[in-house]
Amino acid sequence: MSKVIADISMSLDGYVTGPDPGVEQGLGVGGEALHTWAIDSDDPIDVAVLAGATEQSGAVIMGRRLFDIIDAPGGWDDSMGYGAEHAGTPPFFVVTHTPPSAVRLGLDFTFVTDGPAAAIDQARPAAGEGHVVIMGGGDVIRQCLFDGLLDELRLHLAPVVLGRGTPLFRPGDRQSLVQTSAEVSSTAAHLTYEVIA
Amino acid sequence: MSKVIADISMSLDGYVTGPDPGVEQGLGVGGEALHTWAIDSDDPIDVAVLAGATEQSGAVIMGRRLFDIIDAPGGWDDSMGYGAEHAGTPPFFVVTHTPPSAVRLGLDFTFVTDGPAAAIDQARPAAGEGHVVIMGGGDVIRQCLFDGLLDELRLHLAPVVLGRGTPLFRPGDRQSLVQTSAEVSSTAAHLTYEVIA
Repeated sequence: MSKVIADISMSLDGYVTGPDPGVEQGLGVGGEALHTWAIDSDDPIDVAVLAGATEQSGAVIMGRRLFDIIDAPGGWDDSMGYGAEHAGTPPFFVVTHTPPSAVRLGLDFTFVTDGPAAAIDQARPAAGEGHVVIMGGGDVIRQCLFDGLLDELRLHLAPVVLGRGTPLFRPGDRQSLVQTSAEVSSTAAHLTYEVIA
Repeated sequence: MSKVIADISMSLDGYVTGPDPGVEQGLGVGGEALHTWAIDSDDPIDVAVLAGATEQSGAVIMGRRLFDIIDAPGGWDDSMGYGAEHAGTPPFFVVTHTPPSAVRLGLDFTFVTDGPAAAIDQARPAAGEGHVVIMGGGDVIRQCLFDGLLDELRLHLAPVVLGRGTPLFRPGDRQSLVQTSAEVSSTAAHLTYEVIA
């Protein structure tokens, strides 16, 4: 059955970006260490986790800052399968107050101006048999988690302490989860949690 | 070879206790969820992780607050193998500015007044072939990690977001680690990291 899944990489101290994320720094100073498993690993477990996630994604939701990073020159490109030739990539839904005037990437982007819940409502029918995957940023995922919109949280825990950046959780957050599966590679612990309603 | 190992349970948002830890609340409000794997699990993986850690411990280091919690009435007791009958338990070294005037538990406690590094120096010969295990609190472990005193960090990641409590890491901390092994039970992800000098 189609699920709503948040899927994000996190440091041991709970950051999903390094300091100063944005178009200039990508995922922040030192933030690339969070994504070694996805970008720079030939560990078969990492490769399988990434391929499985891609294959299961029927539609993808992201926040505006993440969109700006990947749509900027130097962001996603053809070599990653995200350029002009994009057959097979899922539709993307971007949560933003103000849609951009132009989009560089030749992908199927929809800009949703009334919040994450509305983005999920639009993404569900577009996802078909696949899952609705929220790939970040941290604020969108956190809001979906605590608004009860998630079925599953997938954390890719990188072996690094970043010290600063965008925290996934905030003081006062409380949530119990059920750990359902985990796979560990040389570069990350891939942890899957079911969200308890 | 004997190693210096920090071994502690942590929430997904990085807390090693809930709010208000101390003699009254133990490991803080909601903090018991951190230790389900050790205290209330019959999952064979949890049982094996706990037994392995106990067996390998040649000497144990802890901070003063943790000592106060376990030495208070309602803390450790005979049923946990930590009462008057304590053959086989390792020597304990407590880092404190002011040793207590009396100790309830019939265990081998040494109070070390000149910091964690001195406690490790005293614990090493006492550990024999076993490891020196730092079981908390978070401040002692953090200090040892960033002072370069640890060989290994073992985190037991509980599937809970606590929102408040004692964080293991602080803003500004930076450290790369090497993930060396992991075992996942139904109640926790047991993650082992080698500390890079």
